[in-house]
Amino acid sequence: MRTVRVGLIGLGTVGSGVVEILRRHREDFATRAGVDIELARYADRDASRFARLGLPPEACTTDAAEIIADADIDVVIELIGGTGAARGVVLAALEAGKSVVTANKALMASHGQEVMDAAEAHGVDLMFEASVGGGIPIIGPLKHSLVSNEITAVYGIVNGTTNFMLTQMTRDGLDYATALTEAQARGYAEADPSADVDGLDAAAKIAILASIAFNSRVTLGDVPAEGIRSITPVDIAYATEMGYVIKLMAIARRVEGGVDVRVHPTMIRSGHPLAKVDAVYNAIYVVGDAVGETMFFGEGAGSLPAASAIVGDVIEVARHIQSGCLNIVGCTCREELPVREIGDLVTQYYVRLLVEDRPGVLAKVAQIFGENDVSLASVLQTRTDEHGGAEIVWVTHAAAERDVRAALDAIALLDVVREVASVIRVEEL
Amino acid sequence: MRTVRVGLIGLGTVGSGVVEILRRHREDFATRAGVDIELARYADRDASRFARLGLPPEACTTDAAEIIADADIDVVIELIGGTGAARGVVLAALEAGKSVVTANKALMASHGQEVMDAAEAHGVDLMFEASVGGGIPIIGPLKHSLVSNEITAVYGIVNGTTNFMLTQMTRDGLDYATALTEAQARGYAEADPSADVDGLDAAAKIAILASIAFNSRVTLGDVPAEGIRSITPVDIAYATEMGYVIKLMAIARRVEGGVDVRVHPTMIRSGHPLAKVDAVYNAIYVVGDAVGETMFFGEGAGSLPAASAIVGDVIEVARHIQSGCLNIVGCTCREELPVREIGDLVTQYYVRLLVEDRPGVLAKVAQIFGENDVSLASVLQTRTDEHGGAEIVWVTHAAAERDVRAALDAIALLDVVREVASVIRVEEL
Repeated sequence: MRTVRVGLIGLGTVGSGVVEILRRHREDFATRAGVDIELARYADRDASRFARLGLPPEACTTDAAEIIADADIDVVIELIGGTGAARGVVLAALEAGKSVVTANKALMASHGQEVMDAAEAHGVDLMFEASVGGGIPIIGPLKHSLVSNEITAVYGIVNGTTNFMLTQMTRDGLDYATALTEAQARGYAEADPSADVDGLDAAAKIAILASIAFNSRVTLGDVPAEGIRSITPVDIAYATEMGYVIKLMAIARRVEGGVDVRVHPTMIRSGHPLAKVDAVYNAIYVVGDAVGETMFFGEGAGSLPAASAIVGDVIEVARHIQSGCLNIVGCTCREELPVREIGDLVTQYYVRLLVEDRPGVLAKVAQIFGENDVSLASVLQTRTDEHGGAEIVWVTHAAAERDVRAALDAIALLDVVREVASVIRVEEL
Repeated sequence: MRTVRVGLIGLGTVGSGVVEILRRHREDFATRAGVDIELARYADRDASRFARLGLPPEACTTDAAEIIADADIDVVIELIGGTGAARGVVLAALEAGKSVVTANKALMASHGQEVMDAAEAHGVDLMFEASVGGGIPIIGPLKHSLVSNEITAVYGIVNGTTNFMLTQMTRDGLDYATALTEAQARGYAEADPSADVDGLDAAAKIAILASIAFNSRVTLGDVPAEGIRSITPVDIAYATEMGYVIKLMAIARRVEGGVDVRVHPTMIRSGHPLAKVDAVYNAIYVVGDAVGETMFFGEGAGSLPAASAIVGDVIEVARHIQSGCLNIVGCTCREELPVREIGDLVTQYYVRLLVEDRPGVLAKVAQIFGENDVSLASVLQTRTDEHGGAEIVWVTHAAAERDVRAALDAIALLDVVREVASVIRVEEL
């Protein structure tokens, strides 16, 4: 058995999980999987982490380039994150003939083609299971078992922070700000929460999944993302009343002539399996023409779950190194499907309006929807306030986003309309 | 690109799904996965199926041995089923240097070691994703992404027929016989339903999953199986009342000094993700020391879902053939963990007794539980009948199966006890 020597770059939360798993199971991996994996070198800009993790000083460096230059290193684990230094490190490692395992969703979503091409050019593996869904196996299944399918849709709850917040808001009636404070207190949200709450983290993940599922490169910039900042307890209460749950959904669908990829708060039926994925759990719902509907569920973040996926990838690479068959499954983006404009989206919409409580308001609004080809599935006028205002909640039938937007622009101008308070897409999965 | 030539043996429901997928997607697989897969030969004892599927007569035979003898065939798909002819066909194919893809749970659960050894000896692949959970990727994830974990438990709802029946019984209050008739009418249950309703199908599947999860061979004969024939609407009503759902669970747990593997109707908390897996859907809940809790959900049976897994395996084998790296991941049963006796099981029990409605009955029964070290979590005495009988429902704390059985044997002998009507294990997942 050949010892596969691994250099670990980035010793944060996930990196320490990788160290822990390999300490605990190195011998098991040798016995069970037939691979001997040695964590041989460690790099981090913060040298204090070396001692904290009890790493041998001679194996540690603050300069990642030393690991890249080390001819004895077979595999580099990149846990720097982001698209700056990480991109250089990954490219340099691949060019040096090392396989790379990364958890870097931003890199894969923004420069996926570049790094996959580099891996192919140098005949090595580039694996990134941990970049989506933490420890949940999803990239492996899409590239292997499910490769027999034409995937028609991927619906993901792939951001644990926002799912935790929405769960708290739904269960306990918290407002957005309180839910965010709670998430921050528990360490689920950063001090600057924007990557999570604005949907950018989920957008990167769905770009990665869409690229694999549809064999066509989708990048972060292609994905319109709306976050959850505007979700209120009022909307959640209406959703519950109508049998829906609000989730931040990352959606990728194969549509006529292209792909439809987007992230936004979405009302889904409360009976759907995804509606029951609560708190920090993630789930990815995959629909294929042969397999039908499948779902992959688990912890989407955290040190050990992410490290589970990373070490799984490292073992896979080690098997390939031992058998001399690196880069069997590389990039599969053989098609160039256009990403559809969000304006062309056809779905249902929940619209909450604050209006004057006067006769004829409902008719005026309904007329504008009609003039814009938006037909209505239901309307509720249930709340009135002490200032002569009323609240009207509409759910449309499937309509084009651009028509709904045009209607809402016109509706906002009506003197009887105080505010278009919420617009939330409704998906019948 | 080398054309990988496949011989398909068995043209029943799943076989026709394989034909359909390859007809639909052969070119896609070439473009996207870089493999050209030709269904080159077909065998079935029923020659009428050839024309029905529109297969070229010259490629068809009623003698599987012809396909095994064909030197141009690279991969054999075995869809005969069972452990008779299928075992011979699989072994002969492997010995002839062909890789094998099978959906045969009985074969893998009873002769898994023999066929895996044969694959290794001849340097070919033997893949069997479709043997458990239909199209749900579960064997791939266990052997790849999750290989970094010490798996501590696998809980599966892996039999769609019984899950459909239990769902009907729970939702609509049907009794067992009516639910079975309904399942048969919809084609979900066979005329002789015993493999499904007696838990043998599930037992084979959990033997396969346990072997992979624990790296230790578990065979069908090791798995105590109880089916759902004895489940009544009364028990389901009590379960619902207490916040449980009854599912036919296939369970494999790593325990002190061995493994605990079994199939039986089980009460699980209605809030658990597995409790919401209804109708013919399957799900496998996997707990690992790094990944935490994960679940894999989807259609557990049917022509196209099973064919999805089979063709996924064939594509994988084709990639290995092209890259010259067959048999990278073979059998991983490197340990020999004993399978624990069911008598040593420690879990909670739901017990329903029919008794005389007389003072002191409850005390007498409780005393016998106590004498046998079975402590009680709750007791309900809610129903009485017109013949002076009453019903008492007990839920025990965690207790050893052999103690519970001893207690029940003694309780059954009490003159005030008419019947030990039901005993159902309760698992707090």
